[in-house]
Amino acid sequence: MIQRYANAEIERIFGDENKTFLWQEMELVVIEAKEDLKMIPEGTHKKIKQIWESNPIDLKWWLAKDEEIHHDLNAFIFERVQLLPTELQKYVHEKMTSFDTEETPFLKILHLANEVVENKFDTYYSTLVNFATKNRFTITIARTHGQEAELKSLGARSLSWIAELDSVHQQWENAIEQTYSSRISGAVGNYGSMSPKVEERALSLLRFEPFYGATQILPRSIHASLAQVLCNLVLVLDKIAHDVRLNARSGRPLLQEPFKKTQTGSSAMPHKKNPIQLEQIEGLARLAKGYTLAITENIHTWEERAIEQSCVERIAWLDLFSVVVRVLDVMQKVFSNITVYRENMLKEIVDARGTYAASEAKEFLKKYLSESANLGYEESYRIVQLACFNAFETVNLIDFEDKAPQSLAEADSLLDIQKNKPAPEVISIEEIISSGLLRINKQLVATEEDVTRYNGLLLNLFGKKKGVIEEWHNLFQPSFLLQKEHVLFDKILPPVE
Amino acid sequence: MIQRYANAEIERIFGDENKTFLWQEMELVVIEAKEDLKMIPEGTHKKIKQIWESNPIDLKWWLAKDEEIHHDLNAFIFERVQLLPTELQKYVHEKMTSFDTEETPFLKILHLANEVVENKFDTYYSTLVNFATKNRFTITIARTHGQEAELKSLGARSLSWIAELDSVHQQWENAIEQTYSSRISGAVGNYGSMSPKVEERALSLLRFEPFYGATQILPRSIHASLAQVLCNLVLVLDKIAHDVRLNARSGRPLLQEPFKKTQTGSSAMPHKKNPIQLEQIEGLARLAKGYTLAITENIHTWEERAIEQSCVERIAWLDLFSVVVRVLDVMQKVFSNITVYRENMLKEIVDARGTYAASEAKEFLKKYLSESANLGYEESYRIVQLACFNAFETVNLIDFEDKAPQSLAEADSLLDIQKNKPAPEVISIEEIISSGLLRINKQLVATEEDVTRYNGLLLNLFGKKKGVIEEWHNLFQPSFLLQKEHVLFDKILPPVE
Amino acid sequence: MIQRYANAEIERIFGDENKTFLWQEMELVVIEAKEDLKMIPEGTHKKIKQIWESNPIDLKWWLAKDEEIHHDLNAFIFERVQLLPTELQKYVHEKMTSFDTEETPFLKILHLANEVVENKFDTYYSTLVNFATKNRFTITIARTHGQEAELKSLGARSLSWIAELDSVHQQWENAIEQTYSSRISGAVGNYGSMSPKVEERALSLLRFEPFYGATQILPRSIHASLAQVLCNLVLVLDKIAHDVRLNARSGRPLLQEPFKKTQTGSSAMPHKKNPIQLEQIEGLARLAKGYTLAITENIHTWEERAIEQSCVERIAWLDLFSVVVRVLDVMQKVFSNITVYRENMLKEIVDARGTYAASEAKEFLKKYLSESANLGYEESYRIVQLACFNAFETVNLIDFEDKAPQSLAEADSLLDIQKNKPAPEVISIEEIISSGLLRINKQLVATEEDVTRYNGLLLNLFGKKKGVIEEWHNLFQPSFLLQKEHVLFDKILPPVE
Amino acid sequence: MIQRYANAEIERIFGDENKTFLWQEMELVVIEAKEDLKMIPEGTHKKIKQIWESNPIDLKWWLAKDEEIHHDLNAFIFERVQLLPTELQKYVHEKMTSFDTEETPFLKILHLANEVVENKFDTYYSTLVNFATKNRFTITIARTHGQEAELKSLGARSLSWIAELDSVHQQWENAIEQTYSSRISGAVGNYGSMSPKVEERALSLLRFEPFYGATQILPRSIHASLAQVLCNLVLVLDKIAHDVRLNARSGRPLLQEPFKKTQTGSSAMPHKKNPIQLEQIEGLARLAKGYTLAITENIHTWEERAIEQSCVERIAWLDLFSVVVRVLDVMQKVFSNITVYRENMLKEIVDARGTYAASEAKEFLKKYLSESANLGYEESYRIVQLACFNAFETVNLIDFEDKAPQSLAEADSLLDIQKNKPAPEVISIEEIISSGLLRINKQLVATEEDVTRYNGLLLNLFGKKKGVIEEWHNLFQPSFLLQKEHVLFDKILPPVE
Repeated sequence: MIQRYANAEIERIFGDENKTFLWQEMELVVIEAKEDLKMIPEGTHKKIKQIWESNPIDLKWWLAKDEEIHHDLNAFIFERVQLLPTELQKYVHEKMTSFDTEETPFLKILHLANEVVENKFDTYYSTLVNFATKNRFTITIARTHGQEAELKSLGARSLSWIAELDSVHQQWENAIEQTYSSRISGAVGNYGSMSPKVEERALSLLRFEPFYGATQILPRSIHASLAQVLCNLVLVLDKIAHDVRLNARSGRPLLQEPFKKTQTGSSAMPHKKNPIQLEQIEGLARLAKGYTLAITENIHTWEERAIEQSCVERIAWLDLFSVVVRVLDVMQKVFSNITVYRENMLKEIVDARGTYAASEAKEFLKKYLSESANLGYEESYRIVQLACFNAFETVNLIDFEDKAPQSLAEADSLLDIQKNKPAPEVISIEEIISSGLLRINKQLVATEEDVTRYNGLLLNLFGKKKGVIEEWHNLFQPSFLLQKEHVLFDKILPPVE
Repeated sequence: MIQRYANAEIERIFGDENKTFLWQEMELVVIEAKEDLKMIPEGTHKKIKQIWESNPIDLKWWLAKDEEIHHDLNAFIFERVQLLPTELQKYVHEKMTSFDTEETPFLKILHLANEVVENKFDTYYSTLVNFATKNRFTITIARTHGQEAELKSLGARSLSWIAELDSVHQQWENAIEQTYSSRISGAVGNYGSMSPKVEERALSLLRFEPFYGATQILPRSIHASLAQVLCNLVLVLDKIAHDVRLNARSGRPLLQEPFKKTQTGSSAMPHKKNPIQLEQIEGLARLAKGYTLAITENIHTWEERAIEQSCVERIAWLDLFSVVVRVLDVMQKVFSNITVYRENMLKEIVDARGTYAASEAKEFLKKYLSESANLGYEESYRIVQLACFNAFETVNLIDFEDKAPQSLAEADSLLDIQKNKPAPEVISIEEIISSGLLRINKQLVATEEDVTRYNGLLLNLFGKKKGVIEEWHNLFQPSFLLQKEHVLFDKILPPVE
Repeated sequence: MIQRYANAEIERIFGDENKTFLWQEMELVVIEAKEDLKMIPEGTHKKIKQIWESNPIDLKWWLAKDEEIHHDLNAFIFERVQLLPTELQKYVHEKMTSFDTEETPFLKILHLANEVVENKFDTYYSTLVNFATKNRFTITIARTHGQEAELKSLGARSLSWIAELDSVHQQWENAIEQTYSSRISGAVGNYGSMSPKVEERALSLLRFEPFYGATQILPRSIHASLAQVLCNLVLVLDKIAHDVRLNARSGRPLLQEPFKKTQTGSSAMPHKKNPIQLEQIEGLARLAKGYTLAITENIHTWEERAIEQSCVERIAWLDLFSVVVRVLDVMQKVFSNITVYRENMLKEIVDARGTYAASEAKEFLKKYLSESANLGYEESYRIVQLACFNAFETVNLIDFEDKAPQSLAEADSLLDIQKNKPAPEVISIEEIISSGLLRINKQLVATEEDVTRYNGLLLNLFGKKKGVIEEWHNLFQPSFLLQKEHVLFDKILPPVE
Repeated sequence: MIQRYANAEIERIFGDENKTFLWQEMELVVIEAKEDLKMIPEGTHKKIKQIWESNPIDLKWWLAKDEEIHHDLNAFIFERVQLLPTELQKYVHEKMTSFDTEETPFLKILHLANEVVENKFDTYYSTLVNFATKNRFTITIARTHGQEAELKSLGARSLSWIAELDSVHQQWENAIEQTYSSRISGAVGNYGSMSPKVEERALSLLRFEPFYGATQILPRSIHASLAQVLCNLVLVLDKIAHDVRLNARSGRPLLQEPFKKTQTGSSAMPHKKNPIQLEQIEGLARLAKGYTLAITENIHTWEERAIEQSCVERIAWLDLFSVVVRVLDVMQKVFSNITVYRENMLKEIVDARGTYAASEAKEFLKKYLSESANLGYEESYRIVQLACFNAFETVNLIDFEDKAPQSLAEADSLLDIQKNKPAPEVISIEEIISSGLLRINKQLVATEEDVTRYNGLLLNLFGKKKGVIEEWHNLFQPSFLLQKEHVLFDKILPPVE
């Protein structure tokens, strides 16, 4: 991973020093297991361990040897063996094939990198829980299809993000669990010269279990599964980031990623506050998908193994972990200092003209008019639809003739006119319906006759009794509409201790 | 492709009837070539052709035979040959391998499907050209990073879409050109029993050229390239669709996909006008990427060929073409009846408070103050940035203490208060700067001292002469800002005849 | 999925009839739940159920209505509601949004299709277990890197396939488990008009649990995970198929997919027995990867949902399941009638000249010579390497000058000469080493001096005592080399009852 | 790219020093263009150029500034501007947006990296041409479906590889051509403050043309196309590598990648010569597909641009080029020293028992027997098929009862027996057919009666005249079968000068 996006700890974990250290640990543990099983003289493990631990691997020598013999593990063994007296040499890598040594350390590298990610995840998760808790009563309009739908608290919106993270976290645990089985079963996986007992003992010293039925290598579907989950995690985080970006669009922004005092938004345009950090996450998600594709294809190999997966694993895992860490870092940075424009959220609600309760309004009409006034199932829908369209008539002016200006001069003058236009009155569907103010609308099929009938029904309904009007008014209150959100907070948020 | 998204013509082209018809054409053309080259008796071609054309292939018999012998081309040959008198039988498929017959018809299927796409593309392209032309002077704010950037006509925005389509169209022509080479070169591609002369003659009768160096099949990198371009086309169309969706977000929509009078926006929410057609395109793009990946992987095969690519080609090409056609149909339907909210565009410009000319404002200050007032390079940037932030202070209220309501009741009452708040005054950076109205802003580093100095400089500049003020005012006019857009229209749009 | 690769049951499960049946079931279950909770009059559920069940949905009417209103679920509701008396109509889809009805049925469709796959999987799994058991003592050479490595029974090779299937099966169970949570939580997922109690009750009637924190839809990372596992399954099966293909290469085939008596191998080449069924699996795997990519990208949507995922789910899931079923069908067909060329396997072992025990030979030399003869760690490796290269000198003749024939006539005559050459003698490394027959080899660094020394050491070692020779000879016996394979059979195969 | 697979020149090209150098070149060229157009004072360009060229950019200062202001291009401008006297500062980056400066240099980086690849490609291409030329008459059996098909020279097989490379090279040229258009058209691409004339002049100084209709950035479908072609190139090279791997399988290897004298094939198995370099290419191809996917997705951005593509372009292009270079390096290394086992190729032909001419044999029978003996179209196929199956009866012994050994001891003894079996006689279909030696075969449907009739016909045919036998014998000669291959060499290989 290039410097700009690299994480030092991930780089260290995948580095040569750590890898060869883990190889050495593996060789030692096999010797220890054999000693435990009385297959080699007592004390062998201790002697070799002491010599090796006081002689760190000479990485330069090792790389030069690898260049010569085209085999990094053999080069490592040669480097280690030459430190030992002849009588100890034969115990090293005895009857083992390269991947008996390499397989488990590679899993340990994944575990170490995964731990870094887990920590970052926990940090961001807490930040998000705080964000949800803090915004438990910050009211906003939830959108579906990019269109204002119904009221929802910002806190509850965040709970959806948290719930999906919980779900992916469960996948993650399952995937990681599979990576705690490994193998030391010889060149073709049938314990040709290795012993199942040595395998079991050595792996247990490292807290692994044997995977029975490996070839020279573990099946790569195990690794693929982990990569897929990490990719899913990135995609979920990208979905969250994207939601914030959608809410950060200027005009009436609702959320905004932190903007440093000294930041310059654009070299040309000083007014810009671009959500460049969140946008980066979409790019990182593209990369993650690519890396995961490559790792998934590692499932395919020839017979007991070929070595195609090696370069993919050296490169793509490092890059995938780098990307996941980066995404979590950015999300943490953004969410720990995000700007919430609560007043803009309220303005948006006001400007929504009561449509956020259109569903309740429809059910209300069905309840009061379906039987009493014999209003058809579809008609209550059409009444509310008409009221909504009426409410926006003065705002989203539809030019049915689609006339466009013919010159820049005309554009100048239209803009001048617009500057001086008064703001249109805001009328809510609450009022349109309860006052029988429906009008025909060119975008809908209702006829003048329909409208007259509808208004009659409505005036009749709302004119009758105070209880109806109060019930109706109540439909449009946040406290009514969001009364059941508490269930989500109770179910999803971890209990506060 | 499932019925819902299938195109009848594409289904027909990929269907068995068309395929076997093209196989027959291929067999005939090889016989004709041999006759032309005097390798078989004169009249052979005519005789066979007459018999075959008056006996359409019995698809049922053919499929049953295929089931029996596991070889669809052989089954086809058996079906055709049995119609002929014995003396003519030996001329059929003589010395040919299956793919000598199949390869060219498969390319013809791609050509036929491609033609359908080309026609749809041309139709949509014209619609888009009309849209751009009509909206040549419809002014809107172009966004980068989702943030309002600078003025641009809606027409010019459409030109970007057109220009990218032009660019992909060039790729497309190149890719198609490569598919006009084919092969009839025997089982392993070395003209074992076939003759290069027959190949050349037969292919030329179908307007193809020989591809020298095929194995039993053409290299699949040729096909991959066409799939990649079609996928790029879909991705570009998805980018256009996505731009419209971004502009269709409710609150202040600028564009809206057609909504039928009888349409119901949502089963629960009667007020919704969801851009469901444009959203579908994003899904179709996901599918197109998947199909293209599979077709690209067909490049890989064993030696002179294995048959892995066959099922991919039967399935993924049909699906890819279906998706491309569907995307073009939807785009055509949407753009031929799209709603343009021109007044909302003007409102947005007014509400942008002159920031759309921030870049010009910055250059203006550099020009007038850098030398005369020794204003540093970075300072003119910072002055305009401050003016922009000042302009939005009363609108995007930043709560630096991040206080959120503590109950639904509090939310109810905040909403009530908001309903009655007057609209904030709209002050433009044009005025802030020319009247020296800069104020310190918590989001930026400028100190009280800086601000005082800046305002002094500005008052001095604008107080001096009328010419400066006029020049300044002019910076904010569409006719000034968009004066060079005509170049784009001249260069990109096809000349009107 | 096109007819050729479609599975009737999968087509039925994804068909309109089943889908609308499940929608109806869902609507009924919500009514039942409300009745259970005393929210609506007793008997309502029964009345509606009776009417609906005696009036199957009119699919034609429904599709026409969908065409009109652009909303398939609304069209379905209209169709169902019109059958009911007015007083019952209001209980249908009451306060629900479309996806309250659609989400759970979609999961049920996945479950039904998954069940088909599970059954096919179980059948193939049993076949593979039988194959492994039958070939418990069928000896073959396992290859790594396509190169003969060590002996392994064909049964044990199959155990690797089984073990990887077991591992993917575990992933599968985890993924399916996540699909047993669903939602009925309203248009934006906060129980606006729905009640958490109704959700819980209705879902439990269908044996689902609530997923708390959904938006209008469940998070698509849940679905992505299932697709990823199915894709992993296909990739593992493709790995198995590919192994068989590698072993089916002509010359000395070891395995061969069934070939029907009436089959024609190739239209041109009557001698061919092509593994076309196994090759097809590689193509199907390419498709599966593409579908999975598309389904994975469904994780991304806008805020509480947009509808991009809909077309992907209608198309790609059907296609993915079709592909998985097809792959399992083909594998079952192939493995239930596969040809095992056991004599060819033995020939291959003989021709391997004892190199399959090279690793044991090396350890043997280390054991006997490292201390007694002060043979270095690397030298025992180099001795065995040299013996192996010597053993193949007369077979894989390396032309160090790389001289190629200069004409086809020369090629003719070389072929004639070759026809009459006697088969080269087969000499094993067992003999080379124990008889001190090492020779220098141009491909390796050992000098004449080294070789003399090595042969001396070897003659000394093997000349000494009979025990050594017997131990040495034993190293090359299958019964010695495969003595630990039984552990794999014990651990992996399900116990026979 | 990690050190192990990195290419120094590619790293340099994508490095900060080169990037900022190219940015500076771009800024200078815009100043030069303005001067040429008399928009700024004569001599400005020269003055600035001199100062900048004698003061290389301070990368450390720049990175620190970027950290502060979150904008690398602005940081660069600040660094450069501070070197200039105040009166020159205003000419730098005047009226430009960041991507006016960055876009063209990024294309130049791609061009530079592409040039490295082109050179490597040319080198490998020449090596491959030499390989094809040298092996013009090296005869081998071409395989389809992994099954021996017909004779082909190794040279002609290489021509298929060359022809596909030629085809991809054409795609490559087309893709590169599109990258010679660029843009300097302001923040939203409508020449807000920039001039089309400056753009045209500045770009022409760098040998670019204007791309009319860009937004703030060029459309990324242009870049995607280049990545797709590079990926296709890698996939084609992987196909070639894979063919060699298939031919390198031990037993009877035909080709082998170079093996160093000091190389160790496996830590456990000294006899191994693994094609690890060629296998690596498959892994690199997986990576290339992943990178290309990410780059392709960059086509998607918001409106006039968002910055998601930035991190992908920083990372994935570097990695993609690194991979392509690596693949070409490996292929060059392998092919410049590949081992061709020509005698093994001849052995394989002999052991094919004449089946490589089965197609010609079938046509021969059709020619002589269809009319004279009224042999049906399908029957000549069935005769040759039967002869082929007969020829292999003694070799690929089919155990129709599928009996497997029941113990390791039985396996030991079967192996012992096999060691002493004599080699089976090699009988060719040439002899079987011409001597009427057909026998029934359990794998085919022909009855005893059919066989008797066939043999009768054959004895009659071949008994008649010498000419027939000579013609028949000739069918099996390389010089007959490959007589038309010269066309391929003439058409494909570049003419020797």
